[in-house]
Amino acid sequence: MNAPEEHVLQSIEARRRAQPRLTDAKVTTAHGAGGKAQEALLTSLILEAYGSEQLRLQDDGAVVDVARSARLVFTTDSFVVTPRVFPGGSLGRLAVFGTVNDLAVMGAEPKWLAVSFLLEEGFDMDELRGLAEDIAAASREVGVEIVTGDTKVVERGKGDGVYVNTSGIGILADSVALGADQVRPGDKVIVSGPIGDHGTSVMLARGELALEGDVRSDCAPLADIVASLLAAVPHTRWMRDPTRGGLASACCELAAASGLALRLHEDRIAVRPAVRAACELLGLDPLYVANEGTLVAVVPADAADVAVSTLAAYDIGRDAAVVGTIDTDPGGLVLLETAFGGTRVVDRLVGDPLPRIC
Amino acid sequence: MNAPEEHVLQSIEARRRAQPRLTDAKVTTAHGAGGKAQEALLTSLILEAYGSEQLRLQDDGAVVDVARSARLVFTTDSFVVTPRVFPGGSLGRLAVFGTVNDLAVMGAEPKWLAVSFLLEEGFDMDELRGLAEDIAAASREVGVEIVTGDTKVVERGKGDGVYVNTSGIGILADSVALGADQVRPGDKVIVSGPIGDHGTSVMLARGELALEGDVRSDCAPLADIVASLLAAVPHTRWMRDPTRGGLASACCELAAASGLALRLHEDRIAVRPAVRAACELLGLDPLYVANEGTLVAVVPADAADVAVSTLAAYDIGRDAAVVGTIDTDPGGLVLLETAFGGTRVVDRLVGDPLPRIC
Repeated sequence: MNAPEEHVLQSIEARRRAQPRLTDAKVTTAHGAGGKAQEALLTSLILEAYGSEQLRLQDDGAVVDVARSARLVFTTDSFVVTPRVFPGGSLGRLAVFGTVNDLAVMGAEPKWLAVSFLLEEGFDMDELRGLAEDIAAASREVGVEIVTGDTKVVERGKGDGVYVNTSGIGILADSVALGADQVRPGDKVIVSGPIGDHGTSVMLARGELALEGDVRSDCAPLADIVASLLAAVPHTRWMRDPTRGGLASACCELAAASGLALRLHEDRIAVRPAVRAACELLGLDPLYVANEGTLVAVVPADAADVAVSTLAAYDIGRDAAVVGTIDTDPGGLVLLETAFGGTRVVDRLVGDPLPRIC
Repeated sequence: MNAPEEHVLQSIEARRRAQPRLTDAKVTTAHGAGGKAQEALLTSLILEAYGSEQLRLQDDGAVVDVARSARLVFTTDSFVVTPRVFPGGSLGRLAVFGTVNDLAVMGAEPKWLAVSFLLEEGFDMDELRGLAEDIAAASREVGVEIVTGDTKVVERGKGDGVYVNTSGIGILADSVALGADQVRPGDKVIVSGPIGDHGTSVMLARGELALEGDVRSDCAPLADIVASLLAAVPHTRWMRDPTRGGLASACCELAAASGLALRLHEDRIAVRPAVRAACELLGLDPLYVANEGTLVAVVPADAADVAVSTLAAYDIGRDAAVVGTIDTDPGGLVLLETAFGGTRVVDRLVGDPLPRIC
């Protein structure tokens, strides 16, 4: 190749001086096009918020080291909650904690996250910056590293501002053996705190209900409390964070997967008065309302007290309690002994009383 | 707890008989609510299409075994291509191959996928079934296992039918050392085939251009061809699949990351006549048009012939060629010697000439 001509030399010089800058106040499709605008978004906004060494490489993926022979847990979740900020939480915190909690209840130590934004053209750049910072703060709080990500932009009217997908990898200790197949008749069902806070908080935050109420989402990471529970009760049988569909759906899933019966006692399941009041007005059963920082666990009966006191050592587990027992009959179903002394079958919902709650 | 009363026994019996069935022709928000409708969608559609043992467990994540001390590659990508079917490919194949290719060009053997659907209320259930089957077929073709997933539904007007996010994990052999920091002056730049097929095919498939043309997307998995290249040329320096932003953007990224110059020869970069013609009509430069089954690699000069013949043994690498050389000056930039003998700087694009191409 020949030496460049003068106009090429000038062009080279101009290119060297021109670093991409993020000056746009709103998202445009160019911010998802793989060109300079996307580069500016990445360097000036994403890497500012959570620029791990891995992310700065701007490779197509992230290399992570697994120190020794290991079992990994891999999970993914999309977050479409509306509104994006609500008492006690936000889309960003939800997107981090939701995936962290999925790893935690699988018994894994959360390690690495991938964060993918699906942006609508016209989305406010300052809000995106706030969201990225929120995600960064939440991941630091939990000690997980954001190692890879993606950004796509769709046209106006083809999204709703921003949706976030997070995927996560955690490392599972050899000692952990969790699963519906580990559950035995006589085992105890434990819930770490009052139910229904998250879903109720989001519904109230939508402001469509002309309802006032001091209800805060329970949005919180469960990694620490789960690690303590597994340390104190290594034979913990099964865990879930009862998000969409609430405690009822999580219990129905366990009943179906194990073929055993869950017998729950309504009066042992804590529901805050403000949540109960709001749910009554909304025609909702708190049993079906999403939680985002609440744990349901099944432990051997002789470990129930230790489990409850272990959870109760945490702020978010202060109201931990045994709420039910595993039985053989009616296999595959959940029975609730109501506060009035009757018994009813708790089933999964057919419809969606609370869309876009997470 | 007392023995159930008669009405409870009847309720138990009714629940046992009633298995969730997917009868809806359109997606509703209930299909994302964590209740029976979602259960029906999962068992009757998702698990039918790609029900791995892991997915059937319906846990919050998947446990995967890493046989020994390992480095993993972790990647994520959202897919918003429109239209969802185009000559040579589809949203489903793109969603699998896109993530598989990101793992492959990082040097990893693709192993596990997470698939997340973001559905718009009213989306056609049969199309969703077709999409899931398409994803299943593509993952079988590549030999990756779909081990976890998620489904969310947003209201009408807040999406565009369906968006898919896939995350992936691959295992990186100890011998692989790829990266912009491995590239040396004198190394050769190799491209596996003609460029611009994917983006042009999608643009033509939108039918907005009243253009006819026999252009098919290059949408294909790169895992095998990459594995062969790494076996034949273990000191391969760097690889990318030039998707959004095309070959030009991938080369600009390498130049920026390595601080070295790329000197490309336009007449060695294959472009199909139909693609060139369509690009001319659209005012596009094929260098910037997305590819989805094309590899760009940098190899030591003395391995260039072996690299080209290795790629050429594959159908998708038939037209592999050396298209350029790594130089020290002008560091950080890409120069193109045009077919007319001139030289120009190739820069990253500012805008987005081809939105929603992947």
